[in-house]
Amino acid sequence: MSLEEIEQIKQLKHRYCRFLDTANAAGLETVLTEDIEIDYLGGTYHFKAQGRDEVIAILKAAFHEDFVGSHTVNQPEITILSADSAEGRWTLTDYAVDLRTGYETSGACLYRDRYAKVDGEWRIARSSYRRLYERVTKLDVLPNFTARYLAERATNPEI
Amino acid sequence: MSLEEIEQIKQLKHRYCRFLDTANAAGLETVLTEDIEIDYLGGTYHFKAQGRDEVIAILKAAFHEDFVGSHTVNQPEITILSADSAEGRWTLTDYAVDLRTGYETSGACLYRDRYAKVDGEWRIARSSYRRLYERVTKLDVLPNFTARYLAERATNPEI
Amino acid sequence: MSLEEIEQIKQLKHRYCRFLDTANAAGLETVLTEDIEIDYLGGTYHFKAQGRDEVIAILKAAFHEDFVGSHTVNQPEITILSADSAEGRWTLTDYAVDLRTGYETSGACLYRDRYAKVDGEWRIARSSYRRLYERVTKLDVLPNFTARYLAERATNPEI
Repeated sequence: MSLEEIEQIKQLKHRYCRFLDTANAAGLETVLTEDIEIDYLGGTYHFKAQGRDEVIAILKAAFHEDFVGSHTVNQPEITILSADSAEGRWTLTDYAVDLRTGYETSGACLYRDRYAKVDGEWRIARSSYRRLYERVTKLDVLPNFTARYLAERATNPEI
Repeated sequence: MSLEEIEQIKQLKHRYCRFLDTANAAGLETVLTEDIEIDYLGGTYHFKAQGRDEVIAILKAAFHEDFVGSHTVNQPEITILSADSAEGRWTLTDYAVDLRTGYETSGACLYRDRYAKVDGEWRIARSSYRRLYERVTKLDVLPNFTARYLAERATNPEI
Repeated sequence: MSLEEIEQIKQLKHRYCRFLDTANAAGLETVLTEDIEIDYLGGTYHFKAQGRDEVIAILKAAFHEDFVGSHTVNQPEITILSADSAEGRWTLTDYAVDLRTGYETSGACLYRDRYAKVDGEWRIARSSYRRLYERVTKLDVLPNFTARYLAERATNPEI
């Protein structure tokens, strides 16, 4: 068991989630391989994409200023396969409201990832998940959100 | 501090939660000691059981195909006591809806566990929790669950 | 990368959250430096305080017996800066109901912490967060809480 590699991969995934929820495209570029593959199977969507530019473009469009939510990963099971490859399982709990459509989505997912070490740094090479459950509600009344980072960052980006 | 033992115990607990939420009885057998003791004190229940067969039988009955939810553990404080014994604290956040009864339960718990190394592998030997809080609602209208692993796994088990 | 220091700091933060949610003032004293600085920017509040006595007094007042909730930290990114200083990022997901006012608050935050090693033990020296999002609801009907640690601990403190 290579504990240092495992800790590096945990921090990689944690950075990814932070960059995701803050719509930090420059950050996302540093954590994905150039040929990253995504395969996320929800109850109401199947998000498949390949290549860092495509993935980041889709994420940027989804995490717009009227999107509110968080994606939190837990329960890592990281296995180092070789000096430059590893795999991992995680649980995701997610909460999201798209204020443009009024849809609220929450639930939990089970991730399976592959990681590659590129120029000495671990990156996410493949990421897939399947839902434990997904709950979708069309809100008649939007929630009272008293803070929304994605709406406020244009004028106050620091975090 | 034995970091490798700590990481093994974290992964053990993470596997346990994954096997629990996916009702994977064969998996659960590999993470519990034969004489596992459970003592979970909720606001509306007190779940006590002893012995792996009894515990798994109860869990299988609870995590039926009309059960929806997730159990996520966080904030481990693992202490290695000897070469083959350890203890740990965790926080649990849980969400569950039983579609047969219409009850929704959510909340958070504080775990205290004991672990034993058996034939070179760490296993859960004792697990107890007490609630930080528990919220129970009888739902008049069931949520719109657009994905439910426990209902779908009979035809699509892979995860 | 000093894995043992990183693990110690993770456990420090985990203890802090456990002491916070159980309103354990004696525990909180052991995890904060004497000159701890707090700067928590919510959507409806800006909590700034300095000095361990002041911080604990404010937390004790907030976590009263009619307060219900949990504060869960995830996704640590710990960096050791020297033998006695470190910094860390975390995500917080929080849920709280104050039964005295009927306000429910939930959301997620991004933490930035500083840690100092004092007499051989890591402690939290500075902690700040900003919200990813905050949702505040004035409840017409209070939730059915079937367990509440802070209300019950006077007669049953063990955890």
